[in-house]
Amino acid sequence: MADGSVAPGKVYGLGVGPGDPELITLKSLRLLRACPVLAYPAPETGDSLARAIVAEHLPGDQVEIPIRMPLEVARFPAQAVYDKAAEEIGAQVAQGRDVAVLCQGDPFFYGSFMYLFGRLAETCPVQVVPGVSSLTACAAALGAPLAARNDILAVLPGPLPEDALAKALSTVEAAAIIKLGRHFGKVRRVLESLGLAENARYVAHATMTDQTILPLAAVEADEVPYFSMILVHRRGSAWQ
Amino acid sequence: MADGSVAPGKVYGLGVGPGDPELITLKSLRLLRACPVLAYPAPETGDSLARAIVAEHLPGDQVEIPIRMPLEVARFPAQAVYDKAAEEIGAQVAQGRDVAVLCQGDPFFYGSFMYLFGRLAETCPVQVVPGVSSLTACAAALGAPLAARNDILAVLPGPLPEDALAKALSTVEAAAIIKLGRHFGKVRRVLESLGLAENARYVAHATMTDQTILPLAAVEADEVPYFSMILVHRRGSAWQ
Repeated sequence: MADGSVAPGKVYGLGVGPGDPELITLKSLRLLRACPVLAYPAPETGDSLARAIVAEHLPGDQVEIPIRMPLEVARFPAQAVYDKAAEEIGAQVAQGRDVAVLCQGDPFFYGSFMYLFGRLAETCPVQVVPGVSSLTACAAALGAPLAARNDILAVLPGPLPEDALAKALSTVEAAAIIKLGRHFGKVRRVLESLGLAENARYVAHATMTDQTILPLAAVEADEVPYFSMILVHRRGSAWQ
Repeated sequence: MADGSVAPGKVYGLGVGPGDPELITLKSLRLLRACPVLAYPAPETGDSLARAIVAEHLPGDQVEIPIRMPLEVARFPAQAVYDKAAEEIGAQVAQGRDVAVLCQGDPFFYGSFMYLFGRLAETCPVQVVPGVSSLTACAAALGAPLAARNDILAVLPGPLPEDALAKALSTVEAAAIIKLGRHFGKVRRVLESLGLAENARYVAHATMTDQTILPLAAVEADEVPYFSMILVHRRGSAWQ
């Protein structure tokens, strides 16, 4: 600019899909290759799943900002991690660089990107590009339509207490129970008590090479990962 | 084959995303170009929206099967349309041809593809490729994360009766109210009576060139299209 300052960059929250690298959209692919800076969630040590999904497409000369976070974390340490990441991203944007933030699945479906969005959106332009969410990826993997016609579909986090799960499940036609992990045993018990276990199916790591599909009875409760889901429909199948 | 018969083809239910042609996945794009036969929902007369989304990518030499259906239809005529479409698709598959069925958004998120799936899946191989659904596309368009942490998110069809909508809305943190059309006025009334109207926003034709975003009070109730949605979060924003 005439006064020697640079025009600020832009932040893109890019859904990169549930895991199969081919389930990225043309739009996220174009933008993630065009941005000089890449940010992505990552575990405390080791590789980022979101980055791995797109690794084959990266031009190789991007500045990278891994946002390192333990998978299960108390709320207050997490806030500090998001504060620091927003600061680093904001500094890049202030220097005129566009930043692509990679988000597994969709950025706004229970994703951690919203915490960066809440911090960044007031100070710089942020565009969110939706992605294929785990919700529809699991339905496709199971060959199980989520809901039809006037069905109510509820998305229920597995950490909810038993009575909250039971109450919600008894008032809807269809449900996706997410974030299972160590809550699987409790969720299975609730579904059994409501007579819904036979209509429910379990999928872990949908669309990835280690995708696992099981009836509830066959699942080892202490080996259930966080990235897993149960889909259940009261009629057995949504199209019935 | 040695006995002169042909190996049967395969059916692909392909999510092509919510409307922006760039929101198709690499996988759906590859498969829709590779199949010699293309089927897609279409209005009784005129162009198919699902086909229009991918039109620029079509090789031009595919057999096309439009599945023509009025947008709002009583159940029994619809069954006859799906029966006929399943028969036509099945005949192509029996002759060894792969068939790509285009689905706006995601095939299994309240989509009509499930009715073809229910008819075809027992007689021929069907693979479903998930797509970006209207649910996450609307959230991205609005800059409004759907849900966070242990929030319950409900997907509520607008045609539901007033008391069913009110009951569901008063028990969840977040909701997406879909299939609005002529039900908009009723839905707005319910949200107002629950004190949730201020936290709700309306989007029509998300990601398309005629995308419209409005606060509820500014929406003309008699001009609301079927492809529209209201998103609401009890806390105002999911990240709070």
